[in-house]
Amino acid sequence: MSTEAAVLARLRELATHPAARGLADDVALLGDLVLTHDTIVEGVHYLPTDPPESVGWKLGAVNLSDLAAKGATPAGALLSLTLRGNDDWDECFLAGLAEVCERFGLPLLGGDTVALPAGAPRVLGLTVLGRAGARVPGRSGGQAGDFLWLVGPVGDSAAGLAQLLADSAASGPLVDAYRRPDPLLAAGALLAPHASAMMDVSDGLLLDARRLAAASGCGLRIDLSVLPLSQAYREARGDDRAARLFAATGGDDYALLAALPADLDALTILKGCSAKVVRVGELTEGDAFVLVDNLGLVPLPERLGYEHNAS
Amino acid sequence: MSTEAAVLARLRELATHPAARGLADDVALLGDLVLTHDTIVEGVHYLPTDPPESVGWKLGAVNLSDLAAKGATPAGALLSLTLRGNDDWDECFLAGLAEVCERFGLPLLGGDTVALPAGAPRVLGLTVLGRAGARVPGRSGGQAGDFLWLVGPVGDSAAGLAQLLADSAASGPLVDAYRRPDPLLAAGALLAPHASAMMDVSDGLLLDARRLAAASGCGLRIDLSVLPLSQAYREARGDDRAARLFAATGGDDYALLAALPADLDALTILKGCSAKVVRVGELTEGDAFVLVDNLGLVPLPERLGYEHNAS
Repeated sequence: MSTEAAVLARLRELATHPAARGLADDVALLGDLVLTHDTIVEGVHYLPTDPPESVGWKLGAVNLSDLAAKGATPAGALLSLTLRGNDDWDECFLAGLAEVCERFGLPLLGGDTVALPAGAPRVLGLTVLGRAGARVPGRSGGQAGDFLWLVGPVGDSAAGLAQLLADSAASGPLVDAYRRPDPLLAAGALLAPHASAMMDVSDGLLLDARRLAAASGCGLRIDLSVLPLSQAYREARGDDRAARLFAATGGDDYALLAALPADLDALTILKGCSAKVVRVGELTEGDAFVLVDNLGLVPLPERLGYEHNAS
Repeated sequence: MSTEAAVLARLRELATHPAARGLADDVALLGDLVLTHDTIVEGVHYLPTDPPESVGWKLGAVNLSDLAAKGATPAGALLSLTLRGNDDWDECFLAGLAEVCERFGLPLLGGDTVALPAGAPRVLGLTVLGRAGARVPGRSGGQAGDFLWLVGPVGDSAAGLAQLLADSAASGPLVDAYRRPDPLLAAGALLAPHASAMMDVSDGLLLDARRLAAASGCGLRIDLSVLPLSQAYREARGDDRAARLFAATGGDDYALLAALPADLDALTILKGCSAKVVRVGELTEGDAFVLVDNLGLVPLPERLGYEHNAS
């Protein structure tokens, strides 16, 4: 068992309160409040060369994406900010955080600022609270026969990160997707009343879809050929099977994945939303994971996405 | 301006929502929920040699102390845990956190676990939510003429830290006070309905008392001679003026400081509580800080407590 898996197992033993939802759902639900916390580490979750404004934006956005996946409305945030004596960096980081907070109506309510020892990587945490709507879909409510709908492009962020790793001065729409993801709050709020299960796609579509199916006690079928690849993605990486597998396993997308009963059409529910929406597959009886594209069956790649592992 | 002061000034500009209370109050108040977050850093807020159980206990206790100062009841916690691939440390840390959560009825609801780069100091954060009582005293409600009441001993923790810095194998009640502070939730809940202002003493009594007085637009008078020094403290450091100044500026006490109208007696309100309670001074007109002991006027020390400063 990986180190993180062992720690998570221990945490699950401790988190017995019903509001914790067994730690299986990215968020906690306390009364009508949806609670989430994401921590990002310099050199692990963002590049030391990333502009601090974009780090601030991304910290807000990844937490807001958790609210989006539960159909919740932003209510407030607490920031954990580690300082290393660099005013300019901190100022720009806060400007980026302020920008995403303002854009999505998330008030900053408090937190903590602490000093770091010299040379230590920054660790930045944000707790976000949201007001739940009438329904808060979990990962586990999916039923065999539900269609799986994907909202938002996948692959852009991983392609942008690949560009940055090859050239730290890279720029363009893919780099922007990596640095400044957009949380899909409007789409999430529209889908939540209807979705049998929903989550955001942060670790790779294939990995997250398997998690949703497993939590729902189902198998799944995903069709790579319908992936909503952006024009920029196609230009950078093409759209053959390898490109589609890269997009489906890259992570950092902050797309939404929703299981809807077969008689519902996400395109109708999301009419007027600008996000890309595709029916990417379905939940099935059993526990098999069937991956196809327009050429037929696709062997499952060894790596389905970004598996967190501290070891 | 110190780095942290500049960042805090910027944060205050951002935190305009009334629930943020101007970031002047250790907690936010969103509806009937009191929200607080404390982050601790290895080598800054705890010693790398501290037993991990005690680090877990302390992270819970320092957050619960913020609830105590607002008279709130624990409702839930989100943990930000950084992993460095050391299962034993993490397991023991979680055992200590679980112990303090169980003792004070704080359910663990969620959070995030993230990997650290090799060699990076651990950064551990906890967001705690509490249910507010009928009144949530801030720092700013004190009135000239209010008496200042101190609940809990001061100095033990700083004396314990001094022992550990001299000998990392030191043990005893002072070291225990440093490592495993007790949040004064019961006392806080009893005082909150009556206190014009209240806060926990975490950075040193003199510094925190001056903060409460300043937020309340008052001066203050503190009498060092009545400080509730423990037997262990007296044995380790004596009880002369220097010893009392050390105790009043040391920090990490997690005592409570409450301003009560002069016709109220905290000893009566806290009857049945085991915590030590003394009337340690009063709020005054103006903005002067008068420090006395049984020998007369005491010159204010240059350092009133632990000023956070990342530079």
